[in-house]
Amino acid sequence: MINKDSHTQHISQQFNAELEEVRSHLLAMGGLVEKQVNDAVIALIEADSGLAQQVRDVDDQTNQMERDIDEACLRILARRQPAASDLRLVISISKSVIDLERIGDEASKIARRAIELCEEGSAPRGYVEVRHIGDQVRRMVRDALDAFARFDAELALSVAQYDKTVDREYKTALRELATYMMEDPRSISRVLSIIWALRSLERIGDHARNIAELVIYLVRGTDVRHMGLKRMQQEVQGKAD
Amino acid sequence: MINKDSHTQHISQQFNAELEEVRSHLLAMGGLVEKQVNDAVIALIEADSGLAQQVRDVDDQTNQMERDIDEACLRILARRQPAASDLRLVISISKSVIDLERIGDEASKIARRAIELCEEGSAPRGYVEVRHIGDQVRRMVRDALDAFARFDAELALSVAQYDKTVDREYKTALRELATYMMEDPRSISRVLSIIWALRSLERIGDHARNIAELVIYLVRGTDVRHMGLKRMQQEVQGKAD
Repeated sequence: MINKDSHTQHISQQFNAELEEVRSHLLAMGGLVEKQVNDAVIALIEADSGLAQQVRDVDDQTNQMERDIDEACLRILARRQPAASDLRLVISISKSVIDLERIGDEASKIARRAIELCEEGSAPRGYVEVRHIGDQVRRMVRDALDAFARFDAELALSVAQYDKTVDREYKTALRELATYMMEDPRSISRVLSIIWALRSLERIGDHARNIAELVIYLVRGTDVRHMGLKRMQQEVQGKAD
Repeated sequence: MINKDSHTQHISQQFNAELEEVRSHLLAMGGLVEKQVNDAVIALIEADSGLAQQVRDVDDQTNQMERDIDEACLRILARRQPAASDLRLVISISKSVIDLERIGDEASKIARRAIELCEEGSAPRGYVEVRHIGDQVRRMVRDALDAFARFDAELALSVAQYDKTVDREYKTALRELATYMMEDPRSISRVLSIIWALRSLERIGDHARNIAELVIYLVRGTDVRHMGLKRMQQEVQGKAD
């Protein structure tokens, strides 16, 4: 016979397993889009149109993962009616998945630029910047996901802080490339392809930052969006003591 | 004395009022960002840096609205544990608000370009395209919000369909501007400002489409993201009979 306590515990264990499952799906999707970003950057730098096409093909898969995770979140909301930190977890997952899907989209756009450059011939400038900013935002995506996996608000904070550095380097790169285009107008179309790729990388950094902010919300319960970095740091470190 | 039925009805009336309130907040925020888009385009075309600054100042207000709506949705999820179409409404609102906030962000970026162009002097080309595509995406935002207000899946479908037209015109404009830059390299920096503004407009169209897809999900219960337009049309019109 099932007594009430063991039944409640059973329900709660099952609920925990459901939450854990959807969280691990999110992290698996994260691993996939992180690889897409990596491959898209390599495809662009090495003018590898085959690899670029692979990145574009994976997009359907991440879209399906987004739908699956969304449905799982909705099922949990409808059936389990989670409260407090469980509710925050479901909300954070259902929002992070939007950012992950957009990161996949941006990777796909970079891959399209890679294919363009394979056809038009390589750009005379900008590859160093793509590699450098590409490394930075890939690390941001990885750290944001690690922060989610470990409920690590400090690591999430560092991702948000790092976004400033990426934005600064992105702007510097843009100025240099604009100047270069004036010197060599024949290269404009190819340099524009590089500029669009850099723009996508910068957007990927923004999405990683969004995920990091959701991790802080999840762990600390505070909505830190649109907060200055200083206040965000106080929120994370002040309450951490 | 309160009998159970009237109590249930009372709770349900209060719940409906809460849902209605958060929905009307969403629509109010929508009205505000629609105005931001409008003003940003005018500021750019008329080189009105004062108006551009106003658009940028409103950004804080929309960010606050996003936070408020988010909190209201969370409260409803935690206290009311909505199911079925009520749950879909809360989810659609909490996702649409993300898109509205991003539309505001993009309007703010266009305003920044307007300020740049006030300082650098106007671009030799691209204003016709900004005005034209600006009109189109503003209509998309308004229609997406109207569709939300009226639970009108057909209107939402037309927004999603229209996004194709905008994307096509955006690409044509980009090609023409790239060609122009080659002919007049001294204009590159100013033409790039126009290109970034067009890019923001195209993104605004994407966000309007996202909201439209959420309306279809809300009304029809089907997740139509990443679905081709043909299948989306079948979903909307097939079930409408």
